[in-house]
Amino acid sequence: MIIVLKAGAGDAEIEDVCRRIEALGLRAHVSRGEQRTVIGAIGDDRFKTRLQALEALECVESMVPILQPFKLASREVRATDTVVRIDGAAIGGGRIGVMAGPCSVESWDQLRTVAEDVKSAGAHLLRGGAFKPRTSPYAFQGLEEEGLRLLAQARKETGLPVITEVLEPDKVGVVAEYADVLQIGARNCQNFSLLKEVGQCGKPVLLKRGMATTIKEFLLSAEYVLAGGNPNVILCERGIRTFETTTRYTLDLNAVPVIKKLSHLPVVVDPSHGTGHWEYVAPMAKAGIACGADGLIIEVHHRPEEALSDGPQSLKPDKFAKLMRELRALATVLGRSL
Amino acid sequence: MIIVLKAGAGDAEIEDVCRRIEALGLRAHVSRGEQRTVIGAIGDDRFKTRLQALEALECVESMVPILQPFKLASREVRATDTVVRIDGAAIGGGRIGVMAGPCSVESWDQLRTVAEDVKSAGAHLLRGGAFKPRTSPYAFQGLEEEGLRLLAQARKETGLPVITEVLEPDKVGVVAEYADVLQIGARNCQNFSLLKEVGQCGKPVLLKRGMATTIKEFLLSAEYVLAGGNPNVILCERGIRTFETTTRYTLDLNAVPVIKKLSHLPVVVDPSHGTGHWEYVAPMAKAGIACGADGLIIEVHHRPEEALSDGPQSLKPDKFAKLMRELRALATVLGRSL
Amino acid sequence: MIIVLKAGAGDAEIEDVCRRIEALGLRAHVSRGEQRTVIGAIGDDRFKTRLQALEALECVESMVPILQPFKLASREVRATDTVVRIDGAAIGGGRIGVMAGPCSVESWDQLRTVAEDVKSAGAHLLRGGAFKPRTSPYAFQGLEEEGLRLLAQARKETGLPVITEVLEPDKVGVVAEYADVLQIGARNCQNFSLLKEVGQCGKPVLLKRGMATTIKEFLLSAEYVLAGGNPNVILCERGIRTFETTTRYTLDLNAVPVIKKLSHLPVVVDPSHGTGHWEYVAPMAKAGIACGADGLIIEVHHRPEEALSDGPQSLKPDKFAKLMRELRALATVLGRSL
Amino acid sequence: MIIVLKAGAGDAEIEDVCRRIEALGLRAHVSRGEQRTVIGAIGDDRFKTRLQALEALECVESMVPILQPFKLASREVRATDTVVRIDGAAIGGGRIGVMAGPCSVESWDQLRTVAEDVKSAGAHLLRGGAFKPRTSPYAFQGLEEEGLRLLAQARKETGLPVITEVLEPDKVGVVAEYADVLQIGARNCQNFSLLKEVGQCGKPVLLKRGMATTIKEFLLSAEYVLAGGNPNVILCERGIRTFETTTRYTLDLNAVPVIKKLSHLPVVVDPSHGTGHWEYVAPMAKAGIACGADGLIIEVHHRPEEALSDGPQSLKPDKFAKLMRELRALATVLGRSL
Repeated sequence: MIIVLKAGAGDAEIEDVCRRIEALGLRAHVSRGEQRTVIGAIGDDRFKTRLQALEALECVESMVPILQPFKLASREVRATDTVVRIDGAAIGGGRIGVMAGPCSVESWDQLRTVAEDVKSAGAHLLRGGAFKPRTSPYAFQGLEEEGLRLLAQARKETGLPVITEVLEPDKVGVVAEYADVLQIGARNCQNFSLLKEVGQCGKPVLLKRGMATTIKEFLLSAEYVLAGGNPNVILCERGIRTFETTTRYTLDLNAVPVIKKLSHLPVVVDPSHGTGHWEYVAPMAKAGIACGADGLIIEVHHRPEEALSDGPQSLKPDKFAKLMRELRALATVLGRSL
Repeated sequence: MIIVLKAGAGDAEIEDVCRRIEALGLRAHVSRGEQRTVIGAIGDDRFKTRLQALEALECVESMVPILQPFKLASREVRATDTVVRIDGAAIGGGRIGVMAGPCSVESWDQLRTVAEDVKSAGAHLLRGGAFKPRTSPYAFQGLEEEGLRLLAQARKETGLPVITEVLEPDKVGVVAEYADVLQIGARNCQNFSLLKEVGQCGKPVLLKRGMATTIKEFLLSAEYVLAGGNPNVILCERGIRTFETTTRYTLDLNAVPVIKKLSHLPVVVDPSHGTGHWEYVAPMAKAGIACGADGLIIEVHHRPEEALSDGPQSLKPDKFAKLMRELRALATVLGRSL
Repeated sequence: MIIVLKAGAGDAEIEDVCRRIEALGLRAHVSRGEQRTVIGAIGDDRFKTRLQALEALECVESMVPILQPFKLASREVRATDTVVRIDGAAIGGGRIGVMAGPCSVESWDQLRTVAEDVKSAGAHLLRGGAFKPRTSPYAFQGLEEEGLRLLAQARKETGLPVITEVLEPDKVGVVAEYADVLQIGARNCQNFSLLKEVGQCGKPVLLKRGMATTIKEFLLSAEYVLAGGNPNVILCERGIRTFETTTRYTLDLNAVPVIKKLSHLPVVVDPSHGTGHWEYVAPMAKAGIACGADGLIIEVHHRPEEALSDGPQSLKPDKFAKLMRELRALATVLGRSL
Repeated sequence: MIIVLKAGAGDAEIEDVCRRIEALGLRAHVSRGEQRTVIGAIGDDRFKTRLQALEALECVESMVPILQPFKLASREVRATDTVVRIDGAAIGGGRIGVMAGPCSVESWDQLRTVAEDVKSAGAHLLRGGAFKPRTSPYAFQGLEEEGLRLLAQARKETGLPVITEVLEPDKVGVVAEYADVLQIGARNCQNFSLLKEVGQCGKPVLLKRGMATTIKEFLLSAEYVLAGGNPNVILCERGIRTFETTTRYTLDLNAVPVIKKLSHLPVVVDPSHGTGHWEYVAPMAKAGIACGADGLIIEVHHRPEEALSDGPQSLKPDKFAKLMRELRALATVLGRSL
């Protein structure tokens, strides 16, 4: 941490800051410039979060962190890419994984139809929501445990592992019983109680970036899960909130190479939620792979105009199959496999 | 809802859309313009959330909602201002309520000192966090139940009702036992499981706007609590995420008159989190009252440079007392009381 | 345009609105719903900008445009893709064009070195700034006309057509004398005086999206140039301002398929300015092509650590050559040529 | 400037960075920590913009500026508040100035009516646009020089000094002939050619913040005018672009105390453009004064529903007069005069 003092800070103030830095078990390094005195707090300050309070001192102008605030999620702790293995599928390390299925599990008939279609198109996992976080209290809230049972049935029939969302700490146990991967949605990216709980669930976790979560905060959320003892975290870029309204969110593909630089964790892209319109799903899926994503999560529905949630962003099965063929060609030329 | 068809949509497509609208129990009204055919879905569509899926039809260009998506929170259902009463205090309807105290409850000594100071400066409620949502897993996570007990003790000694945050559905019961007002933090503004739970807790709820939550979504979150049977909801503007970095967030005071127009619920402003720096708290607190807020929630700490959380944005007690005097003069000239 | 009246609007008010709509040469179509009366203004309202003032009437709740506000830039006026031809190069219609070179023209030696390198790597145009818009008045402002002469010299030696930025209406003439394509920078995307001027310059124009410009506003800016009589407009996505700070801007690749849907104009991507860091240029360039962009504009410098502007985002020539090889393979698999 | 090296940077790299820093006339100060080596570049680096290029070195992880990038606009160069004097009016230093009038000058009749009304309500300057920057090429573009003449006539009849916008460097001369204050609009906040020109025009300049301009960039834009020799710069907060859509922009009142801390220049607030709706103008105007603004610029029109631009955000004269009475009471209690 670099602590910049206000112009005119005196010796007593400099000494006071140094004393406080040392009281936290760090070393203080003073550099007196022409315009400002700058004090470095030397040592691993990621666990010294009280340091931040020094900004409240009247003599302090600003504080600048030098180290990234996360550790277990960083490349410094682990240089090689993490590969998350789920039954036959693997995500990370050059192998691309595609998760596809309906936004919500609506009925056995719907789920079975879509599951078979995405399986035959080559998807590696089946997605489907049983517990649904909905902006309006009047919208369909999911089939809940019945939805979990249908997902388990679909896995049995298709052989595809399933991924589904968990909304509250209390439900982690039951969801982990049925699902192969637990999804934390964008609105729960900083639900720390939930993150702590999935840190101990024994199943891989797909963590979606919040719509106003910076990449550093996103990696700190992953750090919660890793620190809980669960190394199998898949990060998911799904769009951030900006001023632009022709897309539902702004899918931030820049996050892919940025995360690849900072972290060893695999990253997948969600072009369905990221754009909110099915016409944009295929181009943004291809772009996601081209910039280095380890996988995709895509919404597919055989009758999107009757979907109970997110119809406008769902691909029909034939369009999804076409996209998979294009992605396979793309992966080859990029030196990866799908 | 207005459904705009693509140029060239034919009669069969128009009829198909009308049939689907009527199947949802609404009336369809077709208007054929020179450039576009537009179909109105007439009726109260707030409970017809399946309507949205029609956007997936190939003939649909866009859909435009006409009604606000919330109902119980709207001025249409209740024209007069809601006043939330908490022991002696009241928030809404011309009376301004100030909640003040430390970000985190750290110890009895700290809490008692700050509580007495804010009480004698004229605050109406004591704030203090027992369960703390922290971006980093390595930061202080709060005293938890011990914190709740200290808050109850402070209430007993000062007579001030207390407000504290609840982080998960499971803990609503225990927090409601100790606290007079339950706070839902910004990161939980769309934690719908938690919103449903506090809808049934029997205590007033202060709901903070999420940092990427639009005002309409914010009112839909309030709708969850109201629909659960709890009419005592206080809304809180606490800053949104923008590109500007000289403040920690961008306190969006525009939300105050906008919410006053759309909703009968009281609105308070949090200039501490909204700006992140103590120097900006007093001017933005005054601005909040000047644009019509029903109250303020302000962080006060007697040694901010040693605070376990949010030191840089905490006012010292003397600065808080000065601000209270200024606010009282301001309220008088605005025709309100504090 | 759809005009939504407030609940309780009376007959006299409805008639007043209709009368005003008709006075503008449009037809009024009234639809009385249970909750709201909605009035459609029928006709091509893009040229009826006074319509917007009706929102000031006390009886009006909101106004919703139905048509896109631009016309010449839209697919409705021209369904087939525009191809902009520049000497041997062509941008649009399946052929990918790459523009590369230094941020600023610094000296003949620098420009010649980089120009030869990008030429041999396969770039189609040479970029280089002679007039530089700089955030700080103390930063290098460009070689100005001397820079234009060096660009012309480089074209002569390499055969590459050149693209360079013009900053003010007054300078359009002299820049058009030297350059093959005139660039309008992000900060001038809504400099309407400049847009009018380049509408009459007789040379192709590359128009960059402003950092807070919506896609609709961006196409309205293009409309200024088209309405001035210049059909050769290339749009450029170069990053928007969001809360994320690990990249300099947030390159919004979603804009590529969105613009392709709304407009016939070619779109290129600037991954250098969009990300601000050379490590992210190659992945985002590939992603840009994968989602359908018609070209790229990339900064290349042989000694970026000594560049007078934007060094951190410049590729060294060998990295640029490697990227070109990868892009060529990618284009083939996508059915396009580069 | 602080230069953070990557983990593992070696002695040769450290020496290379130091050598480059010293070549720019600065001193290098090396601090070797456990995790990172950090090099301070000591001296006034605001004029050493080439320093930034060092970020392109492979051994550099990041660079952190310590000093604000502007100088003449900063409190360090001038601690006391600048007061800009315009005929009888003064803006800054405790005196509040109000500028009011129509968005566009439409006719003599319109301008005279509004000018008399705002004069009798107590406004200090008359505003009115003669050259209008419009998003659509099909919208009213202003009366141009005829508008300037009408403004001069209105000044003669009412005694109010006038403020009007200038759009291009070429027109600064003619606008300065007629106007008392030259306005630079939000879209021209980083039109550096125009900023250089008004730096030499001899008249006060009101500079609006761009909708995606950070406060630091805004002060750098002011620095252009100050560096040109014009000390009379009034800054204007007029709303930034965010995700929120119930207001046209997000008026960022936080900018007022932030600028007051960083700069000696006066700041005014534009609640008309900032919110885009007349109902929000009065509350946000009051909030602007409450948080310390030195003035307001407000749109007034006697028939907003027929205005040629920005009708929905214009106050009618009676509402403006009521607001002025409220502002006067507010100013008194805040210890300032209006």
